Amino acid sequence: MALARAARSGLRRSGGTIGSYTSERDLFCERVSGHKSLLPSLERINAHGNLTYLSTIKKENYTSFWSREIRTTPHYQFPSAEQVVECRSEYDESRYPGLEATKPGEKPRVVVLGTGWAACRFLKGLNTKIYDVVCISPRNHMVFTPLLASTCVGTLEFRSVAEPVSRIQSALSTSPHSYFYLASCIGVDTNKHEVYCETMSNGGLPHEPYQFKVAYDKLVIAAGAEPLTFGIKGVKENAYFLREVNHAQEIRKKLLLNLMLSVNPGISEEEKKRLLHCVIIGGGPTGVEFSGELSDFIMRDVQERYSHVKDYIKVTLIEANEILSSFDVGLRQYATNHLTKSGVHLMRGVVKEVHPKKIVLSDGTDVPYGLLVWSTGVGPSQFVKSLDLPMSPGGRIGVDEWLRVPSVEDVFALGDCAGFLEQTGKSVLPALAQVAERQGKYLVEVFNRIGKQDGGKAFSAKDMSLGEPFVYKHLGSMASVGRYKALVDLRQSKDAKGISLAGFVSWLIWRSAYLTRVVSWRNRFYVAVNWATTLVFGRDNSRIG
Amino acid sequence: MALARAARSGLRRSGGTIGSYTSERDLFCERVSGHKSLLPSLERINAHGNLTYLSTIKKENYTSFWSREIRTTPHYQFPSAEQVVECRSEYDESRYPGLEATKPGEKPRVVVLGTGWAACRFLKGLNTKIYDVVCISPRNHMVFTPLLASTCVGTLEFRSVAEPVSRIQSALSTSPHSYFYLASCIGVDTNKHEVYCETMSNGGLPHEPYQFKVAYDKLVIAAGAEPLTFGIKGVKENAYFLREVNHAQEIRKKLLLNLMLSVNPGISEEEKKRLLHCVIIGGGPTGVEFSGELSDFIMRDVQERYSHVKDYIKVTLIEANEILSSFDVGLRQYATNHLTKSGVHLMRGVVKEVHPKKIVLSDGTDVPYGLLVWSTGVGPSQFVKSLDLPMSPGGRIGVDEWLRVPSVEDVFALGDCAGFLEQTGKSVLPALAQVAERQGKYLVEVFNRIGKQDGGKAFSAKDMSLGEPFVYKHLGSMASVGRYKALVDLRQSKDAKGISLAGFVSWLIWRSAYLTRVVSWRNRFYVAVNWATTLVFGRDNSRIG
Repeated sequence: MALARAARSGLRRSGGTIGSYTSERDLFCERVSGHKSLLPSLERINAHGNLTYLSTIKKENYTSFWSREIRTTPHYQFPSAEQVVECRSEYDESRYPGLEATKPGEKPRVVVLGTGWAACRFLKGLNTKIYDVVCISPRNHMVFTPLLASTCVGTLEFRSVAEPVSRIQSALSTSPHSYFYLASCIGVDTNKHEVYCETMSNGGLPHEPYQFKVAYDKLVIAAGAEPLTFGIKGVKENAYFLREVNHAQEIRKKLLLNLMLSVNPGISEEEKKRLLHCVIIGGGPTGVEFSGELSDFIMRDVQERYSHVKDYIKVTLIEANEILSSFDVGLRQYATNHLTKSGVHLMRGVVKEVHPKKIVLSDGTDVPYGLLVWSTGVGPSQFVKSLDLPMSPGGRIGVDEWLRVPSVEDVFALGDCAGFLEQTGKSVLPALAQVAERQGKYLVEVFNRIGKQDGGKAFSAKDMSLGEPFVYKHLGSMASVGRYKALVDLRQSKDAKGISLAGFVSWLIWRSAYLTRVVSWRNRFYVAVNWATTLVFGRDNSRIG
Repeated sequence: MALARAARSGLRRSGGTIGSYTSERDLFCERVSGHKSLLPSLERINAHGNLTYLSTIKKENYTSFWSREIRTTPHYQFPSAEQVVECRSEYDESRYPGLEATKPGEKPRVVVLGTGWAACRFLKGLNTKIYDVVCISPRNHMVFTPLLASTCVGTLEFRSVAEPVSRIQSALSTSPHSYFYLASCIGVDTNKHEVYCETMSNGGLPHEPYQFKVAYDKLVIAAGAEPLTFGIKGVKENAYFLREVNHAQEIRKKLLLNLMLSVNPGISEEEKKRLLHCVIIGGGPTGVEFSGELSDFIMRDVQERYSHVKDYIKVTLIEANEILSSFDVGLRQYATNHLTKSGVHLMRGVVKEVHPKKIVLSDGTDVPYGLLVWSTGVGPSQFVKSLDLPMSPGGRIGVDEWLRVPSVEDVFALGDCAGFLEQTGKSVLPALAQVAERQGKYLVEVFNRIGKQDGGKAFSAKDMSLGEPFVYKHLGSMASVGRYKALVDLRQSKDAKGISLAGFVSWLIWRSAYLTRVVSWRNRFYVAVNWATTLVFGRDNSRIG
């Protein structure tokens, strides 16, 4: 049961001794998780000691990691780390406000951490006649991630890809005992069946950061993952990620700013080239789609609206291996040709360091840049690493075939933060929207089945039948490459055979498929309207804020 | 000619002695300008001395004022003041990059300061076959201000009210010698016919802040005005203004944050009430329209989507005198009744101080608030005050009936920053979009006439006939008050007689009138689409960023 003692210790004032009990879990983690080595000291302390010790160890970038902090303007990347540590000592666990455990006769309470694909699909389907639901996340909306790259250049508007969670599950705002809390989860006590949270700062609450607890009957962890930086120096300070709507906003602002600054009198040729050099690191679908969108933007809008500097703008996509490595070889070749024709410079290289105005590659090459977008995939978040739960290969929360976390009761995990345990014999699924969504849909059936058997309350579903285990069937992959062209790969796995298409028809499939997947009719309508107006009027280039 | 020596001295390194030459202008200014007394020391130095002296005098809030800095999150209000002063000393006027004076045979260059109603209407109409045009402004878009209040609660989207300047005048981005510079003007030398500018910071330019000069043949100052705070303590630090798109964004973010924070467990009743108390200071059209929008938002969207806290939210509009004082008395009464019925609490009061969580009125009453919007009209900006030009009553740039600044050549001023000189016998026009737009339209005719007579170049139109003087005819006023109701006052002045309407028909007139006034077809379409979706789906409440 040592496994079940999660990071709650950080919320106690009693001085936990660092390294005082080494559990099976440490051995387990070190065996399975390569990523853990990035912050080994933090990890160890967090699992066993008192979080207040953090003040002396890794004060910076801690908050940002564990809270899945959304903000990422490079300079503001870690805004509140200092505060968190300072204020925590004022708190006393016994004084914590919060939701106490549900009483007999009350509906069981499901606590959901996260508002991504998995969490929102689960929330959408949950039977709120059986359950009360509390959703906790630092953002109050779901992001329709496959279309996020399009918002950076204005093909789509930001709000067209954001879906408020209260529209996905209206009980959150209307049902008397269901809530949405804009907060980050900072710890879980699986014995007490409680989660500990911290709200965003507002400059006006009685204590800041304001912390509270929520008792659960069932806990669903769908807190997502974080961009992988491989410990490369300067990435977090200088590069933009592309995971949240405000990342896209920042990228758009920076791009438009650089376009305007490079027109200023007295800027040298070299400086203009640097300012207008957009570098994308990582040749996965996000990196490729963003490159495609950028080249579209340049070919149409920059030519028309920034004709003074149109000859200076350049897009470079740097990838260590092959672009779109999960796609069929023919499609890869098509994408390579198409991007090259569209003016995207494809480059093989491994980034060694990132400086404010240049990247240094491992072969010593300097690449000056004006805008740097980092898109090399995701890995486990600090929050996930901090949990004292079994881990899957790759450092995610380990689950069985029913998405349960074994060895603790009433805890489920899904989406990018979860992976099958080694003993299930199944491989960890890729961090894809379709995996997360399918898991959310599956889990909601499990929950509704549990609920109907009166197993909703804490400790009451231990040996209950959960029905069929989760089986994932890959439906295929899509990626747009710009200029009305896309790739559609309908093979079920990398080595399987199946249909693959590239070109304009694929692009139509890509657009239609995503249009039907957009959650609400409102946003479906807006996406269609945005696409139409971009076609007719071009992209909006107001630089707001 | 002493009058013509403008604030250029700030850009020289030679140590100007403070107060070394007292000109006619000082006497003139002190006579006509009441607002000047707010920053008397600054004013005096700026006109005569060296700007670097500012470092010892009024370092804070200087940049923000003169550059018409757009950002206004209260905490970040004055982000770069320190920098400006530090770096300026590195510069040497002779080294300034910039656009030199046009040569014989080249088209004359018109420099336009600003991208508001006046500047944009002027830009739109300017004959670019005759003139090259350079527009300088810290924002690259025009804001459709009458609809800005609607964006704070999501009735309209932000981009629907922003019009990129390059769409208004395409020559700015396509003509070889026309440019848009994202910069603030920091000084004008009317003798040399040059303006001095400073770009926004980017963290990557050779010098920061990056400064440059632009020589003009004709100068059009349309740099707008600034919110009046009457020197009340704490306004700039704690209140939101409502003049730019990002002000509206910040208000929306704050409102949604407060709605979500107040749901948190453990927040006391009193604290909930404070967080959800929205206070508007100033009962002019902007304050009233914003109150109306807020009450709409509360009645529909908060009831539906924040039902846990719906009984705590409250709107208070505080005005020292009467609301909508320029409107017909019947309309005022209608507005008062309608707002009261919609739940807006109207309060008479004068603000004494603003604290982070409460306002103190002059009678000693404390008013706790969660969101404070300040909308008490506008006055001359620090940039305008810093210019050594004749002043109109009220401290604006003084102009004659042709919108020329007398006593200097080739300088015109219009919009909120300009006012008729006392000797014209005309009164200063109100700071309204329709005044600014009409002036822009008028001035463009003057310019096109000058151009056709070959008077476009510097010093070549001194005694040229400019045609008829500018005459303003007020078309009437409109204001929406929420819930499909508006006021339409078609009287030509406050004391004249004429038609005035209130109710649903007025609201239809209000909407149709503004819809036709929106500059581009793209945004006209988006405004209509936004209105339709708000009606069908309600407002979007994703909190982005």
